[in-house]
Order: sequence, then C-alpha cells, then structure tokens
Amino acid sequence: MKKLINQPLDFVRESLEGMAVAHSDLIKVNFEPTFVYRGDAPVKNKVAIISGGGSGHEPMHAGFVGIGMLDAACPGEVFTSPTPDQMLAAAKQVDGGAGILYIVKNYSGDVMNFEMATELARSEGVQVLSILIDDDVAVKDSLYTQGRRGVGTTVLAEKICGAAAQQGYNLRQVADLCRKVNLNGRSMGMALTSCTLPAKGSPSFVLSDTEVEMGIGIHGEPGRLRMQMKSADEITEMLALSIIEDSGYTRTLREWDEDKGEWVDVELTDPPLQTGNKILAFVNGMGGTPVSELYIVYRKLAEICKKQGLEIVRNLIGSYITSLDMQGCSITLLKVDDEMIRLWDAPVRTPSWSWGSFAT
Amino acid sequence: MKKLINQPLDFVRESLEGMAVAHSDLIKVNFEPTFVYRGDAPVKNKVAIISGGGSGHEPMHAGFVGIGMLDAACPGEVFTSPTPDQMLAAAKQVDGGAGILYIVKNYSGDVMNFEMATELARSEGVQVLSILIDDDVAVKDSLYTQGRRGVGTTVLAEKICGAAAQQGYNLRQVADLCRKVNLNGRSMGMALTSCTLPAKGSPSFVLSDTEVEMGIGIHGEPGRLRMQMKSADEITEMLALSIIEDSGYTRTLREWDEDKGEWVDVELTDPPLQTGNKILAFVNGMGGTPVSELYIVYRKLAEICKKQGLEIVRNLIGSYITSLDMQGCSITLLKVDDEMIRLWDAPVRTPSWSWGSFAT
Repeated sequence: MKKLINQPLDFVRESLEGMAVAHSDLIKVNFEPTFVYRGDAPVKNKVAIISGGGSGHEPMHAGFVGIGMLDAACPGEVFTSPTPDQMLAAAKQVDGGAGILYIVKNYSGDVMNFEMATELARSEGVQVLSILIDDDVAVKDSLYTQGRRGVGTTVLAEKICGAAAQQGYNLRQVADLCRKVNLNGRSMGMALTSCTLPAKGSPSFVLSDTEVEMGIGIHGEPGRLRMQMKSADEITEMLALSIIEDSGYTRTLREWDEDKGEWVDVELTDPPLQTGNKILAFVNGMGGTPVSELYIVYRKLAEICKKQGLEIVRNLIGSYITSLDMQGCSITLLKVDDEMIRLWDAPVRTPSWSWGSFAT
Repeated sequence: MKKLINQPLDFVRESLEGMAVAHSDLIKVNFEPTFVYRGDAPVKNKVAIISGGGSGHEPMHAGFVGIGMLDAACPGEVFTSPTPDQMLAAAKQVDGGAGILYIVKNYSGDVMNFEMATELARSEGVQVLSILIDDDVAVKDSLYTQGRRGVGTTVLAEKICGAAAQQGYNLRQVADLCRKVNLNGRSMGMALTSCTLPAKGSPSFVLSDTEVEMGIGIHGEPGRLRMQMKSADEITEMLALSIIEDSGYTRTLREWDEDKGEWVDVELTDPPLQTGNKILAFVNGMGGTPVSELYIVYRKLAEICKKQGLEIVRNLIGSYITSLDMQGCSITLLKVDDEMIRLWDAPVRTPSWSWGSFAT
C-alpha cells in the first residue's frame, strides 16, 4: 500500500489535526470525542446543522464546516459510523438555542447512532430533529443499508440547509427543506477502480483491468452491474437515464415527531422528474479521478438533460463525496425551485467550499 | 486503460467543451485555435493575464480563467506545448489596451512558443511581456527543460498577478510582481504512482508497489531519487527541507526589454528563506490523491515550518496542478510580503477557484 499516511490507525486523527492547523480561522477540532466544529459556535439563535459518518469521503463532511454550511461534523474511523457520544458532544458544543438538525446518510450504523444521539441530546434539553438522505437509485437494500443509500444529495442538502439556517430559518423549516431536498435529489455512481483502506492495506474489492462497476456505493458496496469498460458517453448515459427514469420511489423513514415526542414512521414518495423541470446537476469524482474527466462526463450529461427537457440551472463539478482513492464518478440530479436556487447561491465559507462574502 | 473518456484524441477537446457548457457564466472556449477566455473579455484598460501549457494538469490553467485571475488559457494536447497561434489568438481576444502578460512555465517547448507568440503579438500591435516560472528545486535541467521546471508557484503567481491586474496595476508592475513571486516561490513534488496518458493507454513510467519517486516532474520526468516507500512525515520532511535549504539559486532568463525592443538575458537570484519570514504554504495533490492525505502532509509541514521559524500566514491545500491521475503531492513555499498577501486575499471567481465577491 502506498499512501501519504503514517500509521494507518492514525490516519483520521492526523488528517483532522492537519485541517485544524490549516483552517484555524474557520474551524476547531475536538478529540475524544472527535468532532469538527465552526470556530465561532455556538451562533446564538441560529439552527445548527450537524452531519457525520465514516471517514474516507473527504472533503465531506469536515471540509464543509464553516459559515453558511455545517456547524459541526462527526467523523468516524474509515468507513465506520461515528458514535452517539461524538454526535451528542457536537450538538452541545454548537447549540445556539434554536435547535439542531442532524443530516444523516442512510446507512444502518449511522441511522442507529444518530437516533440514539437525538434521544440523548433531547434528554439533555437540546432540541434535535434528524433527516435521512437516501438518494442512491442504484440498489434497494445493500451492504450496510436498509433501503436506498445516502450519497451525493447529502452534499447538496448540507449546502442548501446550511444557507437556510444561516438566513434564520427555524428548526422545523430547515428540517422540512432538508426532507424536500432529499426527495428531489437522486444519484448513481460507478467505479473504475477499487479503493484501499489504510488499515487494511489492500483494495476493498477487485475490478479487472477491463471491468467497471455501475451503481457502486461509496464504500465499494456492490452495485447493479459489473461490466466491461465503456466510453465516458455510454457510462454517463447509463447513470443519467437510471436517475431520470427512476420515479415515484416510496419508502418509510423514521423521523422524530416533535408534537408526539416520539419516533414515527413517515411514508415518503419521490416526486417525478418531468420535462420543464429545473435541475442542479452534480458530477462528483470518487477521489482519484481528475477533474478533466469529470468535465467529459458533464458534457454528455448536459446533452442528455437537454434532450430530456430538463433545464440545468446550476451545477457542481468536482470531488466532494469520495471513496478514498477510488477512480470513478457519480451523478446527482436535484430538482430545484426558486427557494433552493436562492439558498444554493448564498455565500459559503468552509475549508473546501467557498464563494461570496458575508457582511461583517 | 480505464478512464472516463471517449476517443483518446478527443480528450482535451471534450473536456473543454464540458467546461464551456458548465461555466458559460464565466468563460468561453474557442477552438481552432484552442483557448479558454474570460467571457466578458476584453476588459478595457485592464492588463490581461494569459497562461497555458500542455493539458493534463487540470484545473490549471483553464480552471483559473475568470474574474481576478487569468483572462485566457491556452491548452495544448496532453503534456504537449500549445502553439504560438493559440497564444496569439488568445492575446488578440482579451487585449483591453493595457497589454498582456504571459505567465510561462519553464519547459523548452512552452518557452519557445510563448517567445514566438510574444513577437507575433507585438508585430500586430499588442503589447506583451512574458515571465518565466522556474521554481522546482528538485533538479536542474531535465527532460523537456533547461534549468529548473515551472510547477506549483505558477498557480500562486496566477492568483496574485490576476488580482493585481484586476486592481489596476499596469503591465510593467504586473510583470515585476510575477517575477518577484517566482523568485520567492520554491517547490518540490513526489509520486506514489505513475500517470496514464489517454493517447498512450499505459503508465508513463513504472514504480513498483513499494517505490516512490522524490522530485518528480509534473509530466513524470525523473526526480532526484527513487526510494522505498516512507511515512508521510518522512516524505514531507524530505520535500520541505529540500525547499527550505535551497537558497541563492541563480539563473539567466530571457525577458523582453521594452526599452530596447529586444530579448535580453536577465540574471536572477532567489532570495533566501530566513527565520522570521512570512510564507504561503501550498500542499498540492497530483490528481489521484485524496485531500485527506494532503492534510496529513500539511500537518507535518506546519510543524517543520514552525521549527524553522517560518510563519505560515496563508495556505492552499488541494489538487491545483496535477499530472492526470498520478498519486502523490508537491509542496510549494512562497515567501510573501504584505502586498502579496493583500492580492492573495482579493476576491476571485473562476470555475475552479472562488472566494469573496466583486462589486457589481
């Protein structure tokens, strides 16, 4: 294994230490329990947004902590859920009195631990809601997941909900918005190569020199199809059409009911993508793919969307939710309305994502 | 070869087409001859900054075209110099009447072609100066290069000079500033893996599973040393100390002399890095390296700089000047003064680099 690391078990801690020293103007890092938080937190009367999950997907989530996005991120070990004590400690650190939204990717460990953290925080008087992201159209039920996996839409939800919180939305409004983003966002990814976990030292799965895996998960979970290498245009078309043709997915998700004071099952159905819809198109690199290749994917994606009558009004192209050094890409299409576009355009300042300015 | 491409020979064109459709608010792309330019160019009475070089180093340079950085970029084929007609056409497109600065990485083909373009532009009445970047301390004379290679400092020079031009510096001032950035910036890189050229389809050189190459060039040119894999801390220390201990490098570079109306040889000497200096520290990924690993490098680099009495006042961490899908990193240390810091902090808006806002 060749990686820019020291001891494999120090990978997550040392990477976070590097972030802390590099971005001391924006973030702080707490260890034992581990969480990254906005340096000026708590921000009084602002809803705080917290996400987290296994490490190995950087810059998500820690790279998105800052002004206008996340208030805190809880990184687990590589591809391993963070623990409830991390999430609880983060919530207490950043609670500005307006409540906390946990944005949770739908993996069984994350779901279980964030639920426990929600209850723990509530028992300590911190108001918490949590919203699941389950946007991966590739497979239903998978390694680590019941239902669909949470992938690229998570990044978009963190940006949009982070802006909403920054602009003064209350907790219920931010949670409703996050749910809406999830239902309107759909993704699918593919891998050209496997990734190598530092602690394991060998590829987490094996693809031959001529094979690719379509519908891969961000931990290398099996996808829909292993096939012979095809052109970028063919791969893009397979991913894009899988997303566009997916419609009306219905699932039951657990959400905390504020009024009842208990978890309730909520049945949620994705609205269809239709001709005339405005969309945000996100082409994401899996960590080891050069941005030049992502633009080749975007080129074809734009052509397909146009043909389908979908108007791309915003885009994002780069490596935002990764699988260590995996080569490959994912596509996320998010149906957006004017509110989402306005929040997308709002300023943001984090270690890995920045645009616009904040009034000082 | 597994890449997200179609026909290898279409790689550069299709990637640029993707950029054009993705960022039509910021840039336009011209083909035959090929150059990327700021969508609102020419900007009247503003010095225009143009760079270029072989493709395969994205996001440099095309990703840096926009407001507050480059006015145009001339991409060659992969690892191949662009031609004088590209540079001339770009100059004529973006000339706002205040002259053009070519920022040129020191590779023989680039140097020769930008010199020719300078003369051609001048013969058509466009005032052009050109500044060479030769910041790579690893080796003197190399494949493709007489003297030192131009690497990471190029990115920093483009940001700083782009801001200066945006703020109204005249051509001579921008050129002098660019020369100063080059003399104060030094870099060294290393590779964990080779890279694969689309047209060739196989790795451009071979490193075994346990070997790394220290002092590698961005085209995979041989470095100082091929050695057994070491820890991130050891690798960082070798790179950082090679840069810090390098001092007083003297070379003769050709520059256009405005008064004499001819090329003159200018002897230039790098000023030393000394205790108490303020520096900008840039940890760059080579294209296939996850950002989490770059932070592990930055962590050690910050420790080394502190021990050496160098105060890191700004930093940049990410993949900005790459070698296709190569895994590895480079470090650039730029000694900065207040003027450079102010220009570094100035707003910028390009496809791959954005912060702050411009008055509208």
